[in-house]
Formats: sequence, structure tokens, C-alpha cells
Amino acid sequence: MSIPTTDPRSGETRETGIEATTDAGVAAITTAAHAAFLDVRDRPRAWRSGLLRALADGLDARRTELVETAQAETGLATPRLDTEVTRCVMQFRMFADAIDDGGYLEVAIDHAATTPVGPAPDIRRMLVPLGPVAVFGASNFPFAFSVPGGDTASALAGGNTVILKAHGSHPLTSKLSFEVLDAAATAAGAPAGTLGIVYGQAAGATLVADPRVTAVGFTGSLSTGRILLDIIETRERPIPFYGELSSVNPLVITAGAVAARSADIAEGLFTSVTGSAGQLCTKPGIAFVPADAAGDALVAELVARAEAAAPQPLLNRRIRDAFEEISDRLRGAGKARELVAAVVGEEGFALGPAVLEIDAADVTADVTEEAFGPLVVLVRYRTLDDLRSALAAVPDSLTATVHAEDDETTEIAALVEALRDVSGRLVFNGYPTGVRVSWAQHHGGPWPATNTLHTSVGMSAIRRFLRPLAWQNAPEQALPAELRDGETGIPRRVDGVLQLARTLTA
Amino acid sequence: MSIPTTDPRSGETRETGIEATTDAGVAAITTAAHAAFLDVRDRPRAWRSGLLRALADGLDARRTELVETAQAETGLATPRLDTEVTRCVMQFRMFADAIDDGGYLEVAIDHAATTPVGPAPDIRRMLVPLGPVAVFGASNFPFAFSVPGGDTASALAGGNTVILKAHGSHPLTSKLSFEVLDAAATAAGAPAGTLGIVYGQAAGATLVADPRVTAVGFTGSLSTGRILLDIIETRERPIPFYGELSSVNPLVITAGAVAARSADIAEGLFTSVTGSAGQLCTKPGIAFVPADAAGDALVAELVARAEAAAPQPLLNRRIRDAFEEISDRLRGAGKARELVAAVVGEEGFALGPAVLEIDAADVTADVTEEAFGPLVVLVRYRTLDDLRSALAAVPDSLTATVHAEDDETTEIAALVEALRDVSGRLVFNGYPTGVRVSWAQHHGGPWPATNTLHTSVGMSAIRRFLRPLAWQNAPEQALPAELRDGETGIPRRVDGVLQLARTLTA
Repeated sequence: MSIPTTDPRSGETRETGIEATTDAGVAAITTAAHAAFLDVRDRPRAWRSGLLRALADGLDARRTELVETAQAETGLATPRLDTEVTRCVMQFRMFADAIDDGGYLEVAIDHAATTPVGPAPDIRRMLVPLGPVAVFGASNFPFAFSVPGGDTASALAGGNTVILKAHGSHPLTSKLSFEVLDAAATAAGAPAGTLGIVYGQAAGATLVADPRVTAVGFTGSLSTGRILLDIIETRERPIPFYGELSSVNPLVITAGAVAARSADIAEGLFTSVTGSAGQLCTKPGIAFVPADAAGDALVAELVARAEAAAPQPLLNRRIRDAFEEISDRLRGAGKARELVAAVVGEEGFALGPAVLEIDAADVTADVTEEAFGPLVVLVRYRTLDDLRSALAAVPDSLTATVHAEDDETTEIAALVEALRDVSGRLVFNGYPTGVRVSWAQHHGGPWPATNTLHTSVGMSAIRRFLRPLAWQNAPEQALPAELRDGETGIPRRVDGVLQLARTLTA
Repeated sequence: MSIPTTDPRSGETRETGIEATTDAGVAAITTAAHAAFLDVRDRPRAWRSGLLRALADGLDARRTELVETAQAETGLATPRLDTEVTRCVMQFRMFADAIDDGGYLEVAIDHAATTPVGPAPDIRRMLVPLGPVAVFGASNFPFAFSVPGGDTASALAGGNTVILKAHGSHPLTSKLSFEVLDAAATAAGAPAGTLGIVYGQAAGATLVADPRVTAVGFTGSLSTGRILLDIIETRERPIPFYGELSSVNPLVITAGAVAARSADIAEGLFTSVTGSAGQLCTKPGIAFVPADAAGDALVAELVARAEAAAPQPLLNRRIRDAFEEISDRLRGAGKARELVAAVVGEEGFALGPAVLEIDAADVTADVTEEAFGPLVVLVRYRTLDDLRSALAAVPDSLTATVHAEDDETTEIAALVEALRDVSGRLVFNGYPTGVRVSWAQHHGGPWPATNTLHTSVGMSAIRRFLRPLAWQNAPEQALPAELRDGETGIPRRVDGVLQLARTLTA
């Protein structure tokens, strides 16, 4: 029997014809990925940026088919999926630009010199790729955190090869995305094995244990993350595991902000909580609202919107069931009040939004569990001290958001102080969902948000799949082009002084 | 009974008056380190670079006393120890310069913009410190990898506070170094708790498990590293553990090089193998010598030097005993031939150098174990293929060294190809011992050399103790100075374009 696919809108399941990858299949794929790595890593950067642009073009050309396939497997709306493809296309192009820029290589050259401890040799350093990288697709982003997503783009950009683990929730989308990328890569001259894909949970576990795999990128649940981390720990050679795992993303609204714009914030918060049926790792799952009349108005507005909302399909049965289980726990936790109960849709895995409310003094870890779906816990608070105490019960997150007026300088300072240690991105007067792909982005955060000090979104995500290598007193013939003396077109730190790539003028 | 100290030259042990730190003592120290962190992390960079320069000056001023104390506990020669203090002084000053430079913050600013996926918010990113960092001193560098060493300097430079675990092999040196640094820090206005120190193995384990500790820097044996990693895995919140663990550092001499300069290489190799009694993590423990007449001459010269060498004290009884045990294993392994047996000195823990020889075809993992002390295994090879097969049995290392003539282009290319994946630094026509502290240095390497993708020596070591944090649409008042618009005196990547700090002109 082949791997099944289910339409979350109807709940109907059918076979895909895709077989789960066997252990022998995984070994063949990692062997090919290793062989391809030995070839591609030494190709010029211009070839690699061309490869990434070819992948972007390939995706863009098959957009309609990709979106249709993904919609049948995820139930996500067409505009959302279309934007996701655009994001992947843009991301490949941005990483191509980053390759051309060359700053990510962190090149440093220290010429031989006399130092306080004596004569010192010439040392040159740059970052080099690791080898085959395993990338686990996530359920909630069939493109941007799956086959053609950020982990794939950043690992390839660094000069690695990539083996994808298709997410079981969208096997056909994974297969089609892979075929599109693989065809584009082949046309761009990439050797077979530059990209590979495996299907099935067992194959994923085998992949993480494979000695040829040199790093793992994972976006998913804390529980699956722990299983994979346990496999990593049994390896003879440990490898980096970059896990983005769990996040409740606290959002704090000050008295000034709620007084000035309660309706706006209610609308923005509602959209952020329910967009993509709340199945985003950056969904604000807990919002702190002043216990005053303006706060009451915000809550009433949010409740009205939630009550009027149509159920949306969750991604799969497991997520729907887990959401209901966690919602039950949250509802029964301590002194939480249920303001809006999730309405169960008539077909498939559809659910409406849920809103809970609790007083700040009653917040415990029981009501701060992440519910992956359209649920928000509203915490009503009176003072900054109440707020701080309640925040202490919230697990560290990818993001933390503050809605405040500019003249609330005391509140802003106190909130930055309270939130910067427990998150990876501080959002002001906006919403954490919708993660910009850019140089300055950081999509990461303290445990249990992630287990790393790196980002999985934005240009510096490339650093995860590189290691430094130093050359001492190397003859020029032994040096990579980027480390030779003279102009190389990339920024470098030479004898301690950062130098820009020189711009060629006519 | 207090912690003992032993003079390795005589083997005599005496009490130090230093008590092992209790669990309560560790908790008090980490609590103070956390409190100090909340203060120092927000001080301006200029204050922190001043602090590091004050630590450099403090060390420099007490140099004589430090060296004398260390000599009595390590048996290392005065010039070596004096240079080590100089290295620490220089290192603090270089990290101070790096703080002033500000490039290590990796600042990126992306202004709000319209992108292919829609309007995107203003995002600003920089690296921020982690919190209290635990630093484990190493036996073989009583200064440079102990209390005033690179881990301490890089963690402090990043804005963290530091808790040292004194190495049991030099408690008095650790205590004195700590007092010197602590006094200098206090005079520079650092709060109590900026630096802390614990004594005893149990205290080290307690420290690694402490929830207030946010990262660990460790240089030591693979076995101790594994014990500490096991403790990390039991923590509720995992933290990064940067371990520099084990390294045999293969050195390859080509036919051309041995023909051109066998006596020079014999002298250099002998010095590198026996300097500091071979107790350096970068000691070349296995050298590949052509099986020809020039190779025979090199071996003969090396043997003559080893036979003439006086025994030198090893650092402590445990290291001496382990060295003898491993030497016995290597000597008995397969077809190894003992060319020079280690002479046992008359007093203390002194031992002379040992030289083993084996044919390339006979090399197995049995003869590639790291022997921490003055021992080298000479592997005699005939062809590049023999060499590559034998190299495959060598564990990955911090360094790999090639001695070759410039016109041996085929050999150089083949050796770079064979060695770059198994080491962190490629050394040409030199020796891996003597690690330059500079911007381009990389002191790291694949497992089991280290368990990280970072360096523990050189300016980029600071990256280990920083994490990214992003600000989205932040009002200026909420931004650190380095992230505000306008000139800040540091390099930044603004809207994707790297910009240098502008030089102020008159």
C-alpha cells in the first residue's frame, strides 16, 4: 500500500502511489548526495547562484499546478499558497544574491606578522559547506518550510547537497515540488544527488542516523524534535540539529494602546490568530489585555469576530485531534473562562476559532501550552507587576509582541526588559505572523522555541550549514579563490580591517 | 582537607587551603553571575572594551608571580609560561579592539519595504549576549585555556559574565589568576559576580547542570567532555556546549619535501612533538614519511634527537599514567616498531620522548589513538594511494599539516582534497603547534576534535556566546544604540548592503 493523502476539506483519503522509502533506498540517496557534494562544493559561486535562480524560475513556472496540489492536501486558501510559492521563489533569488555578495563566507586574512608572542604565520579563514543536509518538511508550510523552503535554499546556497524528508501531510505536493526543483537543477548542470527525497517516518529516522548526513534542519513539534534529537545522540559522530519546535508568542497590549486603538488591535489580533487556521509557529497564542473598559471592548470585538467566523479546515486529522485535546486541557485549566468555543465544521477537519480568558493572577503553566490552531488565551491584567508575574509562566518563544503608544516610555522599557530574554524577535505595534525573509530577520529563540543560536529564516540561516576552515601559510595554488590576495569581489577582513568588495567602475 | 597541589617536577603534594565548592556555593556564584549579567550587558561597548583592557593590564602587572605559581604546579618552562601570559594579555586587548570594531554584532537593518510578497516591516537584528557562561580550565594551558584564557575573554567580550571551573592540576594558579582578574574588574567598575570561580569536579558538574548557566566552554579530554555532555542532556533547557576534545593532527611529508629538507623537517617536527612535553592539543601525533632514503634520513635524525632529549615533567600523575598506558597500547598495536622508548625521569612525572614507526599498509585505528605527551607515530608510505588509505584510519583533528614543495602540484591538490574534510586548519610547511590568536584563526574541527562548528581561538570565538535578536518596527527608544538610524561607528548591513563604519575626519 502506498502513502495516503487526505483532503482536509472533506476528510477523504486516497492512495498516492508513492512508496515509503526503504532503509536501502535512504542509503542509496545519501550516497548519491555525498557524491554530488564532492562535485558541487568546488564549483564557482557564480554557478551556485545560477543554480538557485534556476530553481526559482522552475518553481515560478509551475506555480498553478503546485498551488492546486497543495490546496487539495492542506486545505489552505489559494492566495495564501500562491504567496507561499512567491516567497520560495523570492527566497531562492535572495540567497543567490547572498552567494554573489560573498559576505556569508566571513573571509578573514591575517598576513604573517610579528606579534607580542613572536612571529606569526599567515592565516586565512572562510566558511565551507558541511555535506549532505537532511531537511524535514513541516505540515503547515507545504512550500516555505517544506521541499522548496528556507532550509533547502540556505543549505544549497552554502554549497551543500540536500535530502528532503517529505511531510506525510502533503506527499503529492512534496513529490511535485521535488520534481520541479530536480528538473531545474539538472537543467542547470547539477549532478544527480544534489537533491534527494525520502518518504515515511521510518525513512526520516534512518536519514537522521545516516553517517553521510552532516546536519539536520527541522521545523515541527517538540515531541518529534525530541525523538530526532535522541537519534542524533546515538550517532557515532554527533551532527548539528537545528530544530524549530514550539512557540506561544506572547503579545502584550498596554493601557495606552488599548485606549487608543482597541478595535484596530482586535482586528489585527483576530487575523493573526486565525490566519491559516492558526497553524503558524508565530501565531500569538496568548495576549495580555488590560482589565479596563477599553480592554473589555477589545475582548468583545475579538469575541464577535470569532463567533462570526466560519470554520476552516485544519491540516490533518492528527493536528485537529491534538488541537481539540489541548483546547480541552486549556479550558479546564484553573480559572480559565471560555468566551468562544470552537465550532466543529460539517466536513473534513474544519474548526472555528476559540477564545479563552483568564485573570493575570490565575495564570499558570497549565494555560500557556501551545495550541496549534485558531485559539487565543486572553490574559487580563491590571499592573505591570501583574503582567510580569503572568509572563513568567509563558514558555520562551520565537516572538514577543508589544502594542504600546510612543509616549508610554516606562511601559515600553519594562516590556522590552521582560521580553527580550524570552524571545528571538520583538515586534512592536504589529503581529508576529508573516515572517519577512530578509538579511536582518531572526526566526529563532530560546528553548523550547528552538534548540539553536541560529535563525531558520533570512539570509543568516546559511550559517547553520557552514563550518570554518583555516589555511596556514598556504601556497596560492592551495587556496580557494576567495582567499587569494588581490581583488575577489567580496567583503573580507584583512589584517583585522573589514574591507568592502570594490565596485568596478567603467 | 583542602584541594591538593602537586609539583610535577618532584611529585610532591601539599594542601592549598582551597576548599572544594559546595553545591550551595555554586548556586550562590551562579546567582551572582546572573545578577551581574543583568547589569553589565547593557553597559556601552566602550565600557566593556575598557574592562578587557583593564584585565590585560592587571595580568601583565602580576606576570612574575603568576608564572612562578604556574611553574610549581605544571612544571612547564618559564619562557613558555611567560609567553602564555603575554598571549592572554594580547588576547584581552584584541577582544577589546573587536568590541570597539563592533563587526562581531553582525548588525543588519532592513527598512520597511514593498516586496514580492507584499509590504514588509522594518527589521533590525544584532547579536546579544547569553548570560552566565561556564568556562572549564584545561590542564595544559594554565593561563591561555584556563582562568584568563580565550573562553573567558570571548565570553566577557560578548557581554556575558563568566564562571570558571578551576582545573585540579593548577588550583593555586587558577586562584591567583582569578584574584588578579577579579581585582582589575572591580577597579574597572564591574559588579560583583562578573567573574566567579568554582573548585572541584563535583562543583563542575553542578555548574553545568545549573539553570542560570547559559553556555559551557570546555577544553579537555573526550571522556570528560562526554560526561559533561551527558549532564547537559539531563537539563530542562539544553544549552550549547563547546567542547574541544581530542586531536591527533596528522602531518604529511611529501617525497619532494623530504628530499629537499629532511633535516629541517626532522628538527621542526621534533620540536613540535616535544614542546611542552607534547601536551598540546595541536601536537602532530602521527607523521607520514616517505619510505625512501630521504625519509630514512629524516627518521634517523628524529630518533637521534629523541634519544638525546632529557625527560620533561608531564603535568600530573594522571596524565603521566594515561600516557604510559596509551604508549603501551600503541607499541603493542599491530606491526608498530618502537624506535625510541620513553625514558622515565628520576623525579616527579618526567618522561622522555617516544617514537614509533609503522608501514602505511599496517595502519589501523589501533595506532591512531591520541597519546597526550611526547610521542609521535611515523607512518612510512610509498604512494599517494597508500597515504590516503592510511589517512582514512586517522580520527578527524583540529589540524592537518602538509610539507610539500611548490612544484608538487598534484600532491598538494590531492592532500588538500584528502585533509580538508578531516580538520579545521590546514598547515603548510610549518607545524600545527603555536596557535596564532587572530581574526582569521580557526581552532576547531570535526568530531572528535570538537563537537561544534565554531572556533575557540581567535576573534570569531565570540560568536559562541551570542544569539541573534530581531526588532520589528521598533520605536527608536526601544532600540539599542547600534541599531538606530544614523552613524554608529560600526559596520552594518543596511537594506542588504554592507557598510563600513565611517572614519571620522578632521
